[in-house]
Amino acid sequence: MSRGILTVVSGFSGAGKGTLMKALMSQYDNYALSISCTTRKPREGEVDGVHYFYKTKEEFEAMIAENGFLEHAQYVGNYYGTPKAYVEEMLEQGKDVILEIEIQGALNVRNLVPDVLLLFVTPPSAEELERRLVSRGTETPEVIRSRMDRAVEEAEFMDRYDYLVINDDLDTCVKEMHELIQAQKNRTSSRQEMIDKMKKELKVRKENA
Amino acid sequence: MSRGILTVVSGFSGAGKGTLMKALMSQYDNYALSISCTTRKPREGEVDGVHYFYKTKEEFEAMIAENGFLEHAQYVGNYYGTPKAYVEEMLEQGKDVILEIEIQGALNVRNLVPDVLLLFVTPPSAEELERRLVSRGTETPEVIRSRMDRAVEEAEFMDRYDYLVINDDLDTCVKEMHELIQAQKNRTSSRQEMIDKMKKELKVRKENA
Repeated sequence: MSRGILTVVSGFSGAGKGTLMKALMSQYDNYALSISCTTRKPREGEVDGVHYFYKTKEEFEAMIAENGFLEHAQYVGNYYGTPKAYVEEMLEQGKDVILEIEIQGALNVRNLVPDVLLLFVTPPSAEELERRLVSRGTETPEVIRSRMDRAVEEAEFMDRYDYLVINDDLDTCVKEMHELIQAQKNRTSSRQEMIDKMKKELKVRKENA
Repeated sequence: MSRGILTVVSGFSGAGKGTLMKALMSQYDNYALSISCTTRKPREGEVDGVHYFYKTKEEFEAMIAENGFLEHAQYVGNYYGTPKAYVEEMLEQGKDVILEIEIQGALNVRNLVPDVLLLFVTPPSAEELERRLVSRGTETPEVIRSRMDRAVEEAEFMDRYDYLVINDDLDTCVKEMHELIQAQKNRTSSRQEMIDKMKKELKVRKENA
């Protein structure tokens, strides 16, 4: 079993990340979405170890002190973080792990894990982004406005990612994203074992020739 | 028309590069193999501008002096080189240009064009490499021996490439290689125009909101 690929997915709110992730998980069986730790209380119907790993503030801060997170942040008074050990365990099992996280978290993961694949999901245009936010029908004009404002700030970080995932047609986009992630398995940095095997075999043949 | 992707393909002699390139060219119409310049005389049936651009020694050295090559080398008293202007023209026309060159040339291209895609073609094992060299039936044992010896040296550079292309089943390999090259079109470094367009559109919407 070869080690899985670690991918970080970020993108504008309204780009369709959630739908993309669901489609990816349902169409292929090699992926695992990382589960975050949080100090926020479980909501009705949420299950520990499924939606989040629920932690007390003390537990969370102990994990920070032990460098137990790939990234963590505070949001409205609660901690959220990606537990290193859990991600590592899934990768070791050969799962391709997807972290759906914000830009600052993504850049932190890149610092800790240089060969992580960073993907940024965007609709084909700003007009389409706004259309999608409006068509949800669940957001107030103020919320839409603030998401569009945030998109202006987020766009400044797009070129810190490795690839754009342009979510125009969902099926095409899921397929492209899958191919892109699978291609990383042949990155030379992911194939060190095969490279070492070839070097060794070639040397043995030379010596025995 | 968006700019094409520049890919360098190297690999062990006997890995099947030639067959792979032919299959790639015949199955997809977006690729162009770069044509090299050389000072060696045309052989029977070779055509200028098809097999090579044939140059005199003086012409070739003038091109070197003008930095006209992405890479060049001498081999058995003749110059061989990849002409910068020709490659640039094909990329501008939207062609995905493939350079099939040796390792030292590949590393020179990476220095001049940092976002070039470097692919290394290898059979799945050293045993299979030797089997392919032998089964050609055209090489003397001495030639096979010297190719296997050279493979030992070449293997030391495998991890300077971006991806391994493992040529086990030809059809699978061609398809994977095509997907990998096409995926580079969404590299953020290839998508600067789209990123700038998104930034601008988002700002305009914010100002007009």
